[in-house]
Amino acid sequence: MSLKIAAFSGSLRKESYTTKLVKAFQHLAPNGVTVELIDISQLPFINQDLEEDLPQQVKDLHNSIQNADAIIFATPEYNRSYSPVLKNALDWGSRPAGQNKWDGKATVVLGCTPYNLGAFGAVNHLRQVLVYLNMHPVQQPEFYLAQAADKFDKQGNLIDEQTKKMITTHWTTFIELINKLK
Amino acid sequence: MSLKIAAFSGSLRKESYTTKLVKAFQHLAPNGVTVELIDISQLPFINQDLEEDLPQQVKDLHNSIQNADAIIFATPEYNRSYSPVLKNALDWGSRPAGQNKWDGKATVVLGCTPYNLGAFGAVNHLRQVLVYLNMHPVQQPEFYLAQAADKFDKQGNLIDEQTKKMITTHWTTFIELINKLK
Amino acid sequence: MSLKIAAFSGSLRKESYTTKLVKAFQHLAPNGVTVELIDISQLPFINQDLEEDLPQQVKDLHNSIQNADAIIFATPEYNRSYSPVLKNALDWGSRPAGQNKWDGKATVVLGCTPYNLGAFGAVNHLRQVLVYLNMHPVQQPEFYLAQAADKFDKQGNLIDEQTKKMITTHWTTFIELINKLK
Amino acid sequence: MSLKIAAFSGSLRKESYTTKLVKAFQHLAPNGVTVELIDISQLPFINQDLEEDLPQQVKDLHNSIQNADAIIFATPEYNRSYSPVLKNALDWGSRPAGQNKWDGKATVVLGCTPYNLGAFGAVNHLRQVLVYLNMHPVQQPEFYLAQAADKFDKQGNLIDEQTKKMITTHWTTFIELINKLK
Repeated sequence: MSLKIAAFSGSLRKESYTTKLVKAFQHLAPNGVTVELIDISQLPFINQDLEEDLPQQVKDLHNSIQNADAIIFATPEYNRSYSPVLKNALDWGSRPAGQNKWDGKATVVLGCTPYNLGAFGAVNHLRQVLVYLNMHPVQQPEFYLAQAADKFDKQGNLIDEQTKKMITTHWTTFIELINKLK
Repeated sequence: MSLKIAAFSGSLRKESYTTKLVKAFQHLAPNGVTVELIDISQLPFINQDLEEDLPQQVKDLHNSIQNADAIIFATPEYNRSYSPVLKNALDWGSRPAGQNKWDGKATVVLGCTPYNLGAFGAVNHLRQVLVYLNMHPVQQPEFYLAQAADKFDKQGNLIDEQTKKMITTHWTTFIELINKLK
Repeated sequence: MSLKIAAFSGSLRKESYTTKLVKAFQHLAPNGVTVELIDISQLPFINQDLEEDLPQQVKDLHNSIQNADAIIFATPEYNRSYSPVLKNALDWGSRPAGQNKWDGKATVVLGCTPYNLGAFGAVNHLRQVLVYLNMHPVQQPEFYLAQAADKFDKQGNLIDEQTKKMITTHWTTFIELINKLK
Repeated sequence: MSLKIAAFSGSLRKESYTTKLVKAFQHLAPNGVTVELIDISQLPFINQDLEEDLPQQVKDLHNSIQNADAIIFATPEYNRSYSPVLKNALDWGSRPAGQNKWDGKATVVLGCTPYNLGAFGAVNHLRQVLVYLNMHPVQQPEFYLAQAADKFDKQGNLIDEQTKKMITTHWTTFIELINKLK
């Protein structure tokens, strides 16, 4: 098996738990699976006027998506919804009209938060977007990492055994879905 | 009556119908009501690391919100949800933690699209965010402008009589709500 | 002050935590506020064919709503959304077309669950319905009772002090909203 | 190919467009595909107290789901969400706890309305429920039948050619998904 996964973190701060969670998925990926974390911080805000002459960052994003067999989205929850920077990448990936690069890809959607509720609002909004983009998310198990601050050490390594198990299970389900949809 | 309304358009392109719709609301505002269209295109993506030394654009946004008696949000629909640039302004307006500038304000949420469905997905997601921000939106009538391309002339003026009537009605309901919540 | 509140529980089982939560609101109501728990278990499934000759239970529901100054909705979460019996009452209360009995009323929406996530999915779906019904819910604070099994004694009395405080705070905000909207 | 599809209509009235839409899917099913319309009108409201001795109608529902290779859900929109009778069937199909009969099945979600907006609110809420039930809906194309009154003749037959084409396309996508998920 050889699979390339493109991963997107919806949080920009350096010590982001969401990004650390993506890295934990990277670290725990099965043999033959490579996970690339895509930088989306330099994309301009989506603006149809820019489509006549696509910025290089958008072209790079398009390449990253097209080269990937499947996608990981990880999102914090801001005001009960997803982060703007993540939606911006999703929107650019679907433009110009009729050239949706996400089309048909398998995906997992991870919610991550230092609080209790587990980012359910953010994940649910993202899933509605994924319907329109014709992506196929793992449905169950859902993946919510609540109280994220307790789950990593100072170097950013995941130290919570239960979360590690959740990630391993998630990889199995994800790869099964990827293979089915091929 | 003297009311100051801050208005936000979720679309950045020059010929945006969403922005034209905001301007139509501006144009049709009742006596004593002033509507200022706030530029949100220069805000950085929300990032907690920037909060230690808030960028000037964020401070300006905070002032605009605090000086306003009420808020107009107008959103296009991108992939069945709101635009990133609008959510980015909403998120910055609520930061740093515990300093939510939107708190308690009356608002209207306008959906605008060149297509048929009227941006219901975008508006519904926004409304979920507004719950968390403790804003009070006009509930009914809802405001969806579908097939927006047919509603404006080349100079960007609203020429559709039914939409003008919708806007006038909306102003009445909006001002009634603003006054009740005072 | 004299206020009549109609309350609806979305759970039918005898030992329902959701119903116990409504009763706790009843018990902790401020002076002058009476809360009536409305039985919705005997309503038929909504069906337009029944509208020509409205069933007595529907007429009773209409009376209960019309006599109330404001409304309490409490919902369990079934499969990440609200319960059918509660939506059925909401739908009947809005029929026949053009005779929405809920119109303009203030309301609170309470989520209740024995699990961790606090019924956010159920509450959020309900709130979307309330927009269409032109009801005005308390936005903040939100009210989620998670791990409900630990909060009541065997007789069904609320024994958790923090939850009692949440309810008292909620009453204050609710009554403030009711008075503003009058 | 031999496939058995269980179909559910969320509308109970005799002349329901939603039910007519299901029958049009039945009529236009490819060779080897049989569609059975399941009666859900006689199910009691979901109530955990009934689970100790499951009503016969619930057992029948469980059999219908288990015998089906895939599922069609068709829903009207009531107050911007799905109908109670449909959610009631979804909930019963997932009970008792740990015995989710819908688990892993492919599905399509059809929105149907006499109005303009196409039941997007109802479909979107249903899709959130299907995530929790671990069902795999066709993502694109979405299926919204708006202005349904114009699409059928007096005998209830679908007469709109464009809708027939939409259905045929939908069948192709649906069967492709069913086969992939096997």
